[in-house]
Amino acid sequence: METVKKLPERVIFPRGARIAGVGIANDHFTGTAWLQMLAPDDTTFHCPVGNVTFEPGARNNWHKHPGGQILLVTSGKGYSQEEGGHVQVIREGDVVRVLPGVKHWHGAAPDSWMSHLAVMPNSDRGDATWLEPVTDAEYQAIPYP
Amino acid sequence: METVKKLPERVIFPRGARIAGVGIANDHFTGTAWLQMLAPDDTTFHCPVGNVTFEPGARNNWHKHPGGQILLVTSGKGYSQEEGGHVQVIREGDVVRVLPGVKHWHGAAPDSWMSHLAVMPNSDRGDATWLEPVTDAEYQAIPYP
Repeated sequence: METVKKLPERVIFPRGARIAGVGIANDHFTGTAWLQMLAPDDTTFHCPVGNVTFEPGARNNWHKHPGGQILLVTSGKGYSQEEGGHVQVIREGDVVRVLPGVKHWHGAAPDSWMSHLAVMPNSDRGDATWLEPVTDAEYQAIPYP
Repeated sequence: METVKKLPERVIFPRGARIAGVGIANDHFTGTAWLQMLAPDDTTFHCPVGNVTFEPGARNNWHKHPGGQILLVTSGKGYSQEEGGHVQVIREGDVVRVLPGVKHWHGAAPDSWMSHLAVMPNSDRGDATWLEPVTDAEYQAIPYP
């Protein structure tokens, strides 16, 4: 298994601030994650863009976006899953489109950092709804190639 | 001046097909450019995403997006200008937001390839309006650092 050992400060776009992990109250992630907003949410574009970086093993909770989400993977290797579907392994250069209202989660693989741009169009339809975590037991049960 | 000598096949995302240059009828570009769509335009997301690569000196015509545009520069060095404003030099990691209806153009620097992701939110507001080219005389008159 390929291992990304060192967290990059930037993969083209800056890593940003730590938003989850030890010492940070964040109910939407398991493990450590970083966020750099690249475009704000506003009432003109309705399309915030963020750069999200997950340490190995880190992932977000199940959640839904009323306007959908487009993930553009810029680095490393990770997981993406929609409710009722298999876990997909995602890698640098992959694009994932999650339809509005579809329950899903995404995060790093066990042995690799993963960074993706997250494009959130139609943000005027409302904020993400955050749901239950992907438990350690569930995460560790994912068959890893 | 930094020179990007060889056109990369991909900078994370694939370069895609040549859409302008010798032998291709394209009224919207000067010089050679490539496009790989990463997310299609559709009636759910209203947010196509493309990866655009310009050879040194290549640029698009002046144009406007009814829904605005977000450029995320992934490689090289280029130019971006809004009508009435100065030419901005843009580089890997830069983000440019162009408001709806604002006349603008973007492209490579004279001595560098440039690739950017182009996010086009609110595509339900209509297609881009393409206008006059940036002439060679205008392009060559840009003060280059």
